[in-house]
Amino acid sequence: MAKKIILDLDTGIDDALALAYALGSPELELIGVTGTYGNVLVETGVRNALAILELFGRSDVPVYTGIPHARERDGFEVLEISEFIHGVNGIGEAELPDASIAARSGSAVDFLVESVKKYGDDLVIVPTGPSTTIAAAIEADENFAENAHIVMMGGALSVPGNVRPWAEANVNQDPEATDLLFRRAKDVTMIGLDVTLQTLLTYEETSQWRELGTPGGDFLAVATDYYIKAYDTTAPHLGGCGLHDPLAVAVAVDPTLVTCLDINMKVDTEGETRGRTIGDEERLNDPVKTTKVAVAVDVERFLKEFMERLSGLAARVESPVSVGVQGR
Amino acid sequence: MAKKIILDLDTGIDDALALAYALGSPELELIGVTGTYGNVLVETGVRNALAILELFGRSDVPVYTGIPHARERDGFEVLEISEFIHGVNGIGEAELPDASIAARSGSAVDFLVESVKKYGDDLVIVPTGPSTTIAAAIEADENFAENAHIVMMGGALSVPGNVRPWAEANVNQDPEATDLLFRRAKDVTMIGLDVTLQTLLTYEETSQWRELGTPGGDFLAVATDYYIKAYDTTAPHLGGCGLHDPLAVAVAVDPTLVTCLDINMKVDTEGETRGRTIGDEERLNDPVKTTKVAVAVDVERFLKEFMERLSGLAARVESPVSVGVQGR
Repeated sequence: MAKKIILDLDTGIDDALALAYALGSPELELIGVTGTYGNVLVETGVRNALAILELFGRSDVPVYTGIPHARERDGFEVLEISEFIHGVNGIGEAELPDASIAARSGSAVDFLVESVKKYGDDLVIVPTGPSTTIAAAIEADENFAENAHIVMMGGALSVPGNVRPWAEANVNQDPEATDLLFRRAKDVTMIGLDVTLQTLLTYEETSQWRELGTPGGDFLAVATDYYIKAYDTTAPHLGGCGLHDPLAVAVAVDPTLVTCLDINMKVDTEGETRGRTIGDEERLNDPVKTTKVAVAVDVERFLKEFMERLSGLAARVESPVSVGVQGR
Repeated sequence: MAKKIILDLDTGIDDALALAYALGSPELELIGVTGTYGNVLVETGVRNALAILELFGRSDVPVYTGIPHARERDGFEVLEISEFIHGVNGIGEAELPDASIAARSGSAVDFLVESVKKYGDDLVIVPTGPSTTIAAAIEADENFAENAHIVMMGGALSVPGNVRPWAEANVNQDPEATDLLFRRAKDVTMIGLDVTLQTLLTYEETSQWRELGTPGGDFLAVATDYYIKAYDTTAPHLGGCGLHDPLAVAVAVDPTLVTCLDINMKVDTEGETRGRTIGDEERLNDPVKTTKVAVAVDVERFLKEFMERLSGLAARVESPVSVGVQGR
């Protein structure tokens, strides 16, 4: 039986790749997407998720709109660096039409809570943006905190952050939310920059998608090329773009792709290092560990799985839409 | 054949325990001690090392005086927190007479450089204070950088620091020196707070030393009780004192006591997080890793080894001196 999965996305180029990874994985049954803010406004992220689902012929997957801003803020504006990395439309200025269907009217938090009640250990939740909506689900329902299995993209333990020397972008958006997640959820796997900056994609791979000559292949190539180009500027030493969000989905499918450190984590919410993900010194010697932090990754095996699943999906789907690129 | 070892100590209570661990380990031949500043002034540390060597009947071990202050400073003053933790005399106000012999007149840097030339892979160097003297040896001789095997106590990767939320005491004293060590030495094992705050000693163990009724046992008990008492104030959540420096010696004897992450490290020398030990993002994907960071430790096995070696040493040695305690 396929494992059920919910993605909590701020869609985003690498969120789009994560969504494609889930759709391309026969081991997974995507039962829903909840939308968060981060790379883009929550509305933009939801629009993109719906559009990508339609592109890949999966308009049946429900999309719910999550909380639009951080716990301790009144609103949210997209950072300049996010627009630089993901484009103003969040998907690298790829011209992907609006989906023909809209987001569900229900609450993302209720959907998360009810899904954990219904599916328990058969469900994994993969958040790839700020933790705001997931933290709200934890607060809404003790059963969610106790029983949700969460594989999150976010944080950085053994390497510097990417928006501040100590802070990774997702956690930096809402440090209180991720801190609550680390302290109250009982099964969290953190897929942070420690491993996602080791899993790099280059133009060599995206050209394989372009050669497919399908709308799905075109979309993946156009969006990811934009992303790689941004990385050429922001992190030229890497020689490619980090496959952040798809790695979290890949680990949800196959936890053996990474090596984890069992450690109870916290997020600094005060002082100079606000937004830092770090071991909680007060729970260091607690024999019960609620978080696993990925500190090593089988890069070659992941990249193989990634390309097989995404290329397979993009080649296979008879897409109802076509993809345009500005200036192309 | 016993493995040769040099300890680079700022003696310090846990440095004293590290020295005792080395003397109590049949697998090790202590060929010398170099003194650095940190917990105490370099002069005080050298005095203490000489006195402890005499206490344990090992005045034959040469002690050299290292560099007295950080690379970018003109001098060094003992921090108030260091005096609180180690006592003004550095050994918990235990009254241990001056040794009958003095430090060698030669240079600590020369001794380090020559020893690596002479013994190569048969030698391990265990620095338990700021990296200043070791960094000077690296700069003095490329052969040292290439061939020294270093197991250092210092830094914190997966947990907060102990003098700042991001900085551990040894590295904080001379961030430039440890950064140089991480970037240029070819075989470094970092034993940081990640593991040393898991290896805790309590009054239960020190009472075993006191019951031996020997000068060595008295000294270990008196000094360590002072240290535990300081920890009761500075880190009451731990329930004991961290065995920082002796764990580094123990790993030099038996690397299987810890689980390490292979990662190229750096020290932040600029900005808000000056003194932080963290993975170097620019060398993250370099297949050659020059540093191993201990992230897990077999606590039970280490504590057993620790007590057997220190109690054995303290019981066995016919000490030429007696130990006094203020107010006792």
